[in-house]
Amino acid sequence: MSMFSAVELGHKVARKEYKKRERELHTQLLETQRRLRESDITLLVIVAGVEGSGKGHVVTQLNTWLDNRSITTNAYWEETDEERQRPHLWRYWRDLPARGCIGIMFGSWYTRPIIDHAFDRIDEDDFRNDLNQIADLERHLTEDGVIVLKLWYHLSVESQEQRLLEDHKQLEIVSPYLEKHASRREIFTRISEIAIRETDQSYSPWHLIEAEDPFYRDLTTGEILLQTMRERLDMEEDWKAQSKTGFFVSEENLPDSGRSVLDLVDLSSHLSSKDYETQLDHYQALAQQLAWQARAAGVNTLLVFEGWDASGKGGAIRRLTHPIDARLYRVISVAAPTDEEKARHYLWRFWRQIPRKGYMTIYDRSWYGRVLVERVEKFATHREWFRAYQEINSFEEQLTDHGCVVLKFWLHIDPDEQLRRFQEREKIPWKAHKITEEDWRNRERWHDYSHAVTDMVERTHSPLAPWHLIPANDKKYARVAVLKAFCDALGVKLASEQVENSESQDI
Amino acid sequence: MSMFSAVELGHKVARKEYKKRERELHTQLLETQRRLRESDITLLVIVAGVEGSGKGHVVTQLNTWLDNRSITTNAYWEETDEERQRPHLWRYWRDLPARGCIGIMFGSWYTRPIIDHAFDRIDEDDFRNDLNQIADLERHLTEDGVIVLKLWYHLSVESQEQRLLEDHKQLEIVSPYLEKHASRREIFTRISEIAIRETDQSYSPWHLIEAEDPFYRDLTTGEILLQTMRERLDMEEDWKAQSKTGFFVSEENLPDSGRSVLDLVDLSSHLSSKDYETQLDHYQALAQQLAWQARAAGVNTLLVFEGWDASGKGGAIRRLTHPIDARLYRVISVAAPTDEEKARHYLWRFWRQIPRKGYMTIYDRSWYGRVLVERVEKFATHREWFRAYQEINSFEEQLTDHGCVVLKFWLHIDPDEQLRRFQEREKIPWKAHKITEEDWRNRERWHDYSHAVTDMVERTHSPLAPWHLIPANDKKYARVAVLKAFCDALGVKLASEQVENSESQDI
Repeated sequence: MSMFSAVELGHKVARKEYKKRERELHTQLLETQRRLRESDITLLVIVAGVEGSGKGHVVTQLNTWLDNRSITTNAYWEETDEERQRPHLWRYWRDLPARGCIGIMFGSWYTRPIIDHAFDRIDEDDFRNDLNQIADLERHLTEDGVIVLKLWYHLSVESQEQRLLEDHKQLEIVSPYLEKHASRREIFTRISEIAIRETDQSYSPWHLIEAEDPFYRDLTTGEILLQTMRERLDMEEDWKAQSKTGFFVSEENLPDSGRSVLDLVDLSSHLSSKDYETQLDHYQALAQQLAWQARAAGVNTLLVFEGWDASGKGGAIRRLTHPIDARLYRVISVAAPTDEEKARHYLWRFWRQIPRKGYMTIYDRSWYGRVLVERVEKFATHREWFRAYQEINSFEEQLTDHGCVVLKFWLHIDPDEQLRRFQEREKIPWKAHKITEEDWRNRERWHDYSHAVTDMVERTHSPLAPWHLIPANDKKYARVAVLKAFCDALGVKLASEQVENSESQDI
Repeated sequence: MSMFSAVELGHKVARKEYKKRERELHTQLLETQRRLRESDITLLVIVAGVEGSGKGHVVTQLNTWLDNRSITTNAYWEETDEERQRPHLWRYWRDLPARGCIGIMFGSWYTRPIIDHAFDRIDEDDFRNDLNQIADLERHLTEDGVIVLKLWYHLSVESQEQRLLEDHKQLEIVSPYLEKHASRREIFTRISEIAIRETDQSYSPWHLIEAEDPFYRDLTTGEILLQTMRERLDMEEDWKAQSKTGFFVSEENLPDSGRSVLDLVDLSSHLSSKDYETQLDHYQALAQQLAWQARAAGVNTLLVFEGWDASGKGGAIRRLTHPIDARLYRVISVAAPTDEEKARHYLWRFWRQIPRKGYMTIYDRSWYGRVLVERVEKFATHREWFRAYQEINSFEEQLTDHGCVVLKFWLHIDPDEQLRRFQEREKIPWKAHKITEEDWRNRERWHDYSHAVTDMVERTHSPLAPWHLIPANDKKYARVAVLKAFCDALGVKLASEQVENSESQDI
């Protein structure tokens, strides 16, 4: 017996009953959708289930009931090449609707893992790893104010066979997945059960809906939708209060030991001009070669530059990019988010910029702003920046899982050196614009930032996405150190790719 | 002798001279870039020219001189499958920088036509047609406040051969295009000449730069860039004044004959309930099949719905989409533009939504807002809405050239019918929200809108992207008429595709 037996209960709704309830439901859905639009809440409806259960009809029905001006329906067929070149969840991130809107997902992040596992393209471990990433994503979205409503439509084996036969007769062209999967029904049932069980969380539960009777199926869908939206809207006030004090993650206070990881950085590190010239030439030549080799091997690299104001991020980036063909990299300077970005999870704007395979993206400031400036300046609530550690780790893990090289730099200087550089800049006409009021204000928060950097390194440093704390009182030393770390990491990655390729050729 | 001979003059700049001028240039470029950022002007730099001329170095140099926080460098390699499924210019539209920013295009809209023609994949006519579309695009961008700066780097044949040999030695991996094209130098020269000559317009002239001496090449580039930005910024005031009175297109007044094309619509058209049911069933079944066939054939369809408030656009769209699998279509309701959209040409937001092959996109209101509401309410200047006819025609032509079916509907009702519907809606709770103050205001402008519709139909109706004026006093008649027009157009298209395919198989 499977979990789905509990749904095979022969639910039915008579036509007359349907007509009556449908009319009322329609009005209430429109009314509730309007409340949703005025709120900051996004509704994501995942429509999943067995072939032949009428998912397409459900989606059409939802589009008929609701005001389609704030709905998008996203269907997911085969991945495009742009999608294949990014982590699997990228295609879903790019379609994330704005706050107040409804996104209907026909096909979802569950599709690929279930199909890949059913066809033995991924093993049990990888499958469960995918499910964990999905559960993380759903938690992160929920915490950000998204309702993740998951609907699974079920048909008994007999009904499914009959239904597919009918469809086959009616339509000349059959949905491409249809025939391929019907034969594997049992495997799919077993795997779907695991997927549902593993991701059936209190914050985004699965709803199993019997799809034998279209009236029952559609009415139940509409009523679940209505109830979910209403409950969430009603609890919005509580929610907001809770989100301030912590709801899913414990309100752990991050104690300030008074010591910073930055104290470990040896700021006396320096390079003579002669050594600088020699090493710069050496590593720049190497970087040029490695960048072309990375393109040939389809390895992409993501570099994050954080650091004190005037610590020389721009200069270090220019020394790194200078030898590299301008077609192979992109520098992204993180500025204020646009309104499309503000209307979504704060990581959305970084997801949308993820490079394709073979390319480099360099972030001059990054998603770490969430746990640095947004934390220190209190732009984000404690809850928001605290959960960002997990969100960032999950994000970077997906990148490295997908073969991306991730390197993170903190360029460290001391307050005296910073003052010297500020004063110097103010004297040079074409650098003066770089120093603003804000820079002077940030200086006063030196200790808070040091504390934030310590927490950040502690919680987001990992072997595959390491932080490099670069002593940058001496610019020459810092520039060479960045180039060297880049060449080392990319060199190791390319060598391991070669080994992997030659091994798979041996087999 | 080619036009390029005029550039082979052996220009040189000594190192010392370079150092001196470069320093000053750097400061001035930064200063001018800051002025640009504060303006509404976008700078698009197209870096083109022969292989080996150091275009990559130029791009790197520009990135070094300028503040990279408001620059994006876009390199164009092979088209991705998402790009191949849209008109050729789509990939460039998607990268269009925001106002105040600089976009460097390494590879550009010239690349594909030149290469395709050189390799005999397109003939002279198609090539010139591509160049015309490019010239149109550049004019439309210029009129929208974009500087299109086009740089062509030239090397003599001897220098090029030597340069490529050196690169070959220095790098283990060679730029993929390199070898393939070097052998066709003469053909490329001839074709490039045509491209340059045909698109060398006063509003976006080509700059031919001799690339023998890197110092001369880079300095000249920087100085052209500086001069172009400065001239444009200085004339900004004049420009704004001119753009109000017409600059490129003559200030033709569109006379109001007092008669509207809408007078020709027979508003007495109607369907009995019985005929309605029969025909609706018939055409919905047909639409369902055609939509699947279109997906199989890779034909995409774009439907535009315009019409009076309460003319029944939503209802007609729902009757059309109802039978169609929700994975095959998307309804886009045009709302206020986001700030990312406002920061670009008004067509940008429609370009970014163009469907892939095999899908349908339905616009509930569209780019025609520019010549309807924006004209009538004076949100757009006369110049802006007047040139929109050309911009729209060019946009739709690119879609139909690429095999897209484009259908445009105006749903027509008379003022009495509209009043009746407004009053009716106000009585129904779940429809009441559809009637706003604005709707009542628009009613007073009936005559102005009629005039605008007449001009719109006159100027944007074409055999491949026709307007259908639908009598909609009777909703039943209108809904069936829309479905019928859709089925007819898609049926004809699919039949012609089949003929084409069978013909090409015969060969």
